[in-house]
Amino acid sequence: MSASETIHVPPREGRAVTVPEGGVVRIVDRDGGQVADMWAFNAHDVREHLSAMHTRAGVDRLFPLVGEAFLTTRRRPILIFERDDTPAIHDMLIAPCDPERYEGLGVEGWHASCEENLLRTMADLGHGDIWVPQSLNLFMNIPVGADTELGWEPAQTRAGDSVTFRAAMEAIVVVSACPQDIVPINNCDPTAIDIELPAS
Amino acid sequence: MSASETIHVPPREGRAVTVPEGGVVRIVDRDGGQVADMWAFNAHDVREHLSAMHTRAGVDRLFPLVGEAFLTTRRRPILIFERDDTPAIHDMLIAPCDPERYEGLGVEGWHASCEENLLRTMADLGHGDIWVPQSLNLFMNIPVGADTELGWEPAQTRAGDSVTFRAAMEAIVVVSACPQDIVPINNCDPTAIDIELPAS
Repeated sequence: MSASETIHVPPREGRAVTVPEGGVVRIVDRDGGQVADMWAFNAHDVREHLSAMHTRAGVDRLFPLVGEAFLTTRRRPILIFERDDTPAIHDMLIAPCDPERYEGLGVEGWHASCEENLLRTMADLGHGDIWVPQSLNLFMNIPVGADTELGWEPAQTRAGDSVTFRAAMEAIVVVSACPQDIVPINNCDPTAIDIELPAS
Repeated sequence: MSASETIHVPPREGRAVTVPEGGVVRIVDRDGGQVADMWAFNAHDVREHLSAMHTRAGVDRLFPLVGEAFLTTRRRPILIFERDDTPAIHDMLIAPCDPERYEGLGVEGWHASCEENLLRTMADLGHGDIWVPQSLNLFMNIPVGADTELGWEPAQTRAGDSVTFRAAMEAIVVVSACPQDIVPINNCDPTAIDIELPAS
């Protein structure tokens, strides 16, 4: 399946695409070892959005399997998990990085963050007043230990690895190429992400 | 420590209290085996609220231990987990029940829900436009399996079991005595919850 359109997300930045109902969107880790924070909103009512807590309740699992659906705040499918051409390590537990995260890590002055990328991208689309939902953290390696302890490990994706979703409703999909360069989740070297909209 | 004030939350209903900075709030499962969905908001800016995703990132665990803090969307402590006089089984992964949940379970017509209890309670306080955060589901028994599968088991609390928090900022605390009577999390018999504000 060739990409009819590719949106390049530069390192540390965010981009949005609107995917029609039934359309396919693929998120590609171009260089490997890079986390992509992702959100999906009902294009006609952004208060309805991909919701981690409703998705977990729907699939009885911390993260859906291929073939299962990510659900919205109204418990409706928004994205179907169609393919996973990665080591199948993703996260839906950890908050997107934000200015307070970097402040807490000792950064002085401004640092790019996934939250800022989301808020700017949505504001550019006229949605300046959202509350930040739990992100779907693609490729992010947060192992859950037997005692429910969480680790922070480098992403295991190789260059070109991707995940593919089919939209169950018209959706605004936002992707941030995570700028985290202190905690080693991006192997301390933030790189780019591609959003592909394959020809259907 | 005697309770200077007790707010009774009838079965299937919700109530709110405002806890001053440094104040203590105790949530009591009066009859045992009952889930209490709980939220906490900065009393001066409800867009800052107890956030599961920020809390997990702060404590590196699915649920804080006694002595640790629940963090807000701005990564600031809002509630300190002071005591746990229960079997220490709680959840912060599952969405509060809502009308769509009961519709999906085959209920015809209206059914009380934790989401409705939250929204009504907050609207009564003048906060009619919130986005529903992940609830802190006290006493809720959602085991996480080795394969990250989630179970739905009856609450293990005994009558009078309680958890105690200290507010790290002035907070609106909302508690819903979960009305779920189909899935067995409340032993299929929803009962009451007490909110105690002990004398300090």
